[in-house]
Amino acid sequence: MVDDEGANGARPIVRRLGAFEERDDWSAAGWCRVERALEVVGTRSAMVLVRELFYGGTRFDDLARRAGISEAVAARRLRQLLDDGIVERVPYREPGQRTREGYRLTDRGRALFPIVVALTRWGDTLKDDHRTGLEFVHDSCGAPLDVEVRCADGHVVDLAESAVRFTDEEFALRYKAAHRP
Amino acid sequence: MVDDEGANGARPIVRRLGAFEERDDWSAAGWCRVERALEVVGTRSAMVLVRELFYGGTRFDDLARRAGISEAVAARRLRQLLDDGIVERVPYREPGQRTREGYRLTDRGRALFPIVVALTRWGDTLKDDHRTGLEFVHDSCGAPLDVEVRCADGHVVDLAESAVRFTDEEFALRYKAAHRP
Repeated sequence: MVDDEGANGARPIVRRLGAFEERDDWSAAGWCRVERALEVVGTRSAMVLVRELFYGGTRFDDLARRAGISEAVAARRLRQLLDDGIVERVPYREPGQRTREGYRLTDRGRALFPIVVALTRWGDTLKDDHRTGLEFVHDSCGAPLDVEVRCADGHVVDLAESAVRFTDEEFALRYKAAHRP
Repeated sequence: MVDDEGANGARPIVRRLGAFEERDDWSAAGWCRVERALEVVGTRSAMVLVRELFYGGTRFDDLARRAGISEAVAARRLRQLLDDGIVERVPYREPGQRTREGYRLTDRGRALFPIVVALTRWGDTLKDDHRTGLEFVHDSCGAPLDVEVRCADGHVVDLAESAVRFTDEEFALRYKAAHRP
């Protein structure tokens, strides 16, 4: 068996704990919560719409135009975001016009904010044209926003100090036994 | 003009500052660093490969199998991740076999860790089956990892205290003047 960690040398990766240590025993499909998240927001068009909603967009035509995607794609993504509870319909009314329906983020949608901030910071490192772009800042002090990985006990945690485990190892082992090929 | 914020009511969104306040003046395309990031990691298949690399995967066939994607898709994504500087080739050798090439994350790739943690936490909220799944923890204390949005001055910042602005407003205004339709 190849020593995966060996190939990574001194470079930190996440340490696998418990039953998950022996990676060959498991296919991650279905276990990993990253996948769940990506089923919902794992497309560029979904995330640029979410970004526009954070910026205050409401109307369908504005959202599509500002996101730079076609109205057909925007309609499909917004329907999916509605189904997944990320956005909800909200009435709005322009002067002299009838009330129409727009969109806004639900609590679940607004919980994507750290991901949007993290993507912005990471995207910032990809090119050298630091002259242009938008950045998130703390409204009261003006300092740029970033995300920090911390544990529930309040420690700042870097990659070298991180590990991954099953949330319920007993359940995982029973599941594996029941699904043995 | 519709009052976008009105439709959001008391629900917080990001406050727009300076020239970006008048949202109708700008199309976000090209300005937003979220888009840059999504050009690189804005597909489900790219992100599940990145996850596998964080878990210590190296070999092409292992990466594809554990990510649950076809080898054709894995090959295409890994080539793109190589081009974008997210992964690099690394030699490995199994006993009695010739040296072969695998993959590992570069520094730029490992900088995606907060995004992977944030996606995991957010994915955790999407379904009710809290019995199953994988979670990131602090190796030394065992407490689960999460991400926290903070400003460069160290304040914890929630969505209601967040704003967005051009990194170089003068440049943005000159650009707009030069590209006026």
